[in-house]
Amino acid sequence: MEHTSWESAAAAKRASVLGKIPEAWRLDEGQLAQARAQRDLTDGFIQQFLNEDEISIISRDSVDIVDQIKQGNLTALEVTSAFCKTAALAHQINNCLHEIFFDEALARARELDAHYAAKVETIGPLHGLPISLKDQFHVKGVDTTMGYVGWIGGNLGVDDPSKVHKVESQITAELLSLGAVLFCKTSLPQTLMFGETKNNIIGQTLNPHNQNLSCGGSSGGEGALQALRGSTLGLGTDIGGSVRIPAAFNGIFALKPTPERLSYRDVANTNPGQNTCRSTVGFLSTSLSGLELGLRAVLSTCPWERDPAVVPIPFRQNVYDECRSRARSNGLAYPWPKNKPLKLGILRNDGHVRPHPPVERGLGEVVKALIIAQHQIIHWKPPSHVTARDIHMSFLTADGGADIHSHLQRSGEPLIPDLQEFFQLKEPMPLLEYQDLTVKALEYEAAYSDYWNKTAGWGGLVTGQVVDAVIMPVAPHAAVIPGKYFHVGYTEAINLLNYSAVVIPVTKADKDVDIVRNPSYQPLNEVDQRNWDAYDPETYHGAPVGVQIVTRKFEEEKALAIADIVVSALQSYRSARERAKEE
Amino acid sequence: MEHTSWESAAAAKRASVLGKIPEAWRLDEGQLAQARAQRDLTDGFIQQFLNEDEISIISRDSVDIVDQIKQGNLTALEVTSAFCKTAALAHQINNCLHEIFFDEALARARELDAHYAAKVETIGPLHGLPISLKDQFHVKGVDTTMGYVGWIGGNLGVDDPSKVHKVESQITAELLSLGAVLFCKTSLPQTLMFGETKNNIIGQTLNPHNQNLSCGGSSGGEGALQALRGSTLGLGTDIGGSVRIPAAFNGIFALKPTPERLSYRDVANTNPGQNTCRSTVGFLSTSLSGLELGLRAVLSTCPWERDPAVVPIPFRQNVYDECRSRARSNGLAYPWPKNKPLKLGILRNDGHVRPHPPVERGLGEVVKALIIAQHQIIHWKPPSHVTARDIHMSFLTADGGADIHSHLQRSGEPLIPDLQEFFQLKEPMPLLEYQDLTVKALEYEAAYSDYWNKTAGWGGLVTGQVVDAVIMPVAPHAAVIPGKYFHVGYTEAINLLNYSAVVIPVTKADKDVDIVRNPSYQPLNEVDQRNWDAYDPETYHGAPVGVQIVTRKFEEEKALAIADIVVSALQSYRSARERAKEE
Repeated sequence: MEHTSWESAAAAKRASVLGKIPEAWRLDEGQLAQARAQRDLTDGFIQQFLNEDEISIISRDSVDIVDQIKQGNLTALEVTSAFCKTAALAHQINNCLHEIFFDEALARARELDAHYAAKVETIGPLHGLPISLKDQFHVKGVDTTMGYVGWIGGNLGVDDPSKVHKVESQITAELLSLGAVLFCKTSLPQTLMFGETKNNIIGQTLNPHNQNLSCGGSSGGEGALQALRGSTLGLGTDIGGSVRIPAAFNGIFALKPTPERLSYRDVANTNPGQNTCRSTVGFLSTSLSGLELGLRAVLSTCPWERDPAVVPIPFRQNVYDECRSRARSNGLAYPWPKNKPLKLGILRNDGHVRPHPPVERGLGEVVKALIIAQHQIIHWKPPSHVTARDIHMSFLTADGGADIHSHLQRSGEPLIPDLQEFFQLKEPMPLLEYQDLTVKALEYEAAYSDYWNKTAGWGGLVTGQVVDAVIMPVAPHAAVIPGKYFHVGYTEAINLLNYSAVVIPVTKADKDVDIVRNPSYQPLNEVDQRNWDAYDPETYHGAPVGVQIVTRKFEEEKALAIADIVVSALQSYRSARERAKEE
Repeated sequence: MEHTSWESAAAAKRASVLGKIPEAWRLDEGQLAQARAQRDLTDGFIQQFLNEDEISIISRDSVDIVDQIKQGNLTALEVTSAFCKTAALAHQINNCLHEIFFDEALARARELDAHYAAKVETIGPLHGLPISLKDQFHVKGVDTTMGYVGWIGGNLGVDDPSKVHKVESQITAELLSLGAVLFCKTSLPQTLMFGETKNNIIGQTLNPHNQNLSCGGSSGGEGALQALRGSTLGLGTDIGGSVRIPAAFNGIFALKPTPERLSYRDVANTNPGQNTCRSTVGFLSTSLSGLELGLRAVLSTCPWERDPAVVPIPFRQNVYDECRSRARSNGLAYPWPKNKPLKLGILRNDGHVRPHPPVERGLGEVVKALIIAQHQIIHWKPPSHVTARDIHMSFLTADGGADIHSHLQRSGEPLIPDLQEFFQLKEPMPLLEYQDLTVKALEYEAAYSDYWNKTAGWGGLVTGQVVDAVIMPVAPHAAVIPGKYFHVGYTEAINLLNYSAVVIPVTKADKDVDIVRNPSYQPLNEVDQRNWDAYDPETYHGAPVGVQIVTRKFEEEKALAIADIVVSALQSYRSARERAKEE
């Protein structure tokens, strides 16, 4: 093995990825400087380098794109080319990619077009749709470094040299079988266990909406790329919030299913032997319908037939339809269930860290919109999310960092400074303590379920029905100021519960509105204090805010249907408010 | 706390249970001596103490019983009374019960009859059916000792004195809500980790078919009770074969579902913090239709709504029907799928320990019957079951016996001699080793699934279809000679895979037929040698032999449907053979 410093290996990798961008799509130093100087990159910066057709293509969402290709109005090649170009521009200004394989993508698009031309039919529901992948998913012929310098030139954890670059994640194969075009892999933080996106290969990925802020993590590059319209649908993973946080921070949508709904087979991961509190594969998308398209398509391939870890539950149209039929409750008018309102829990504050004003306002608007749409709101006071956070954190650190350090040691790179305290190598937890922790986690799940069931007795006319979903913050702040993500409990609790969740964007921080209304707020604890002190209306201005819509285990269809209802309710509420202002 | 020796506490408990048997149902010393002298207790011994009506009732199977009650031909009280009496007689001669609560059962039956009389309807699909429970399931007001002397007077693991005798397992509540009558709890071995049934409270439970032999374990009392017609349906649990082994050894049926199909909530268990390789709740029954009745009924209550560990999969009638429609393949005649034959793997020998002649003959008859019924047989050569056994065993002993010894220490009772070597207290496995083991288990599951999928390419006209199920021995012997159960790998491998399985009885050992055909067999290893040497045609004569029909994860409906087809094929084959002999 050659003795190169980890720094030079990382620099070579960075250069190599940039080197895969065609000459015609490269920005010059002036253009790059212009981008650096701009606070918000989503406001037309990239579009100046695209022609009208390209702009039209990247403005569409996933479902529209596959429809246009199916109808023969667009070719897979046109679409792929537009997204490759946009992703190339995005990466140059935002540093959101780990891998680029545009040539393969364009070749694949040509094949799909040839198939379509010959048979006048698509090969599947994702025919021609460019899909981006977080750099944990293996694609044949491509590195998976997962942000470790030591894995450059290989695939994380694949030690057999004859298999390196030959391994393909099961879900990668499923996407291809459905007609998808894979074109790039997106950035993530070292270790995956971080709500921002930084590693020793690419440095850091910032927030395209506001370059003072982080794009979130760990599926952060995915979120940033989509904010810049470089992709409409992508895969991420979530063990502590990693698809939900970047969705919320980048103003897009995400679905975090219950673990074992989608295949994690042959996907690189941190500490795969810790299988008690599991990570899950999820989708990020520029649209809610994109999430549904992805879930529906992948489940149609029966992933459980190939991955024994996946539970055999197909997409349940009846569950989805039943929920959708309750879109507008029409008051308490009978006949139910068609007019039965949704019963929704609202968690405004987890009792440990109070969300900043933009988050409080965003959630407040959702609640108002739902009340106007005649749905029923329940004040959610479940078993402490702080307990959940503590148990969850203990699982993630149980191995004493052994797995993470084994990857670092391959190159000699250090932990990034943000993680040095948390992931210093230490003694693993003793097994008996780990087993006690497992019992605690199971008891917490059961207690939460009991609390949820109790809601059947609450709420006047809709008693007998348990809460359909719970709406809560994704984080106690909008897209975070780098280094100031102090409390990940809002997402972690949902991981410990193995619930499903959908994130929707609701607003952006606004310095003129989100002033601290109660400057005399007395934080409850030191973390709450740090978070409260970190709120700065000026810095946060423009930062996206999302909320998560949480349903119970394996209720992905329900989460998607309710998210759709919430989005519509919010639109109606805002239109009415606008009309009222105009009058 | 009083200082009583564990021996006297155990003796008092034994006496107390026997004391709950009404005077009229007690056997005298002469009758007990007669029972002890009899090799086979299933051959009318109990019936001599029953009247005609009682004999008629206990000869029926679960489905018949609930039908008769529903039609008003029998009352719950008549049925319950007959089974309580039979169970009382069974326990006196066979030692198969841990707890008796006949009074409560008879009171419950009266209530059910009153409900039926008033409303002319049953309260659920199990209305009036007596159901027995392995002594891990909590019933209000009743001990759960799980065979530990230290838990006499309490409920295993329930430390809060205000909750002792008040806790009820979720599935207990489900059975009650469906109309079941609970009347007794059945014996099991100390630790649950043993293929026989022995503990320091009741001593040992032998095999009613042949008192030289063990009833198996760990749900051994359940198997023995049913062999004596003291129950037609009961609950057991299975982490290494514990519902399948006693079913096979007692000539009855069992369903071992995939973990998380049925609720384990609030069920006592060994080492509940070891949640990687999980135990599962299953049914034992005197009939296949009893298993189906139980599964269908319990799933109709949506157990996942109350136990978040349960996967939300209702009973899938379509899966069941599709399989049943292939009952007789009608050769290779089209149209398929109605006539599509089953494709069945057969594992005759796991490559580590060769089954004894009665098991080889039983399996051979199943294969002949299936070939005659025109189903397709595939020789099954999966990833080594010995690897699975080794991984599995490591999970069960990972805590170094800490959990088991904590229970022993409550009373000072020792490990039973059979387990002293295996469960001596030792250092727990280090966590990193445990996590490596977890990865190995997941890889094994994946490799086995890949092997299963490969079968789509095999088998002539039915290519394209993977194997529907695999049929294999439950153990390398019929109901075992106590102390000679050397290899549990036939069942353990299926636990590691989390597959579902149904056990059906196929034959009994016959000293005149099951002679060692090849006395020059050279055992493969020391365990194979010990098992081979343990075969004694005379001792084993009359011992039941079952086979397990194994399907993939969460394919319980398929396992039940295929078991029904196999039972029919075997009946047809045997009738034809009898006819041929007569001619």
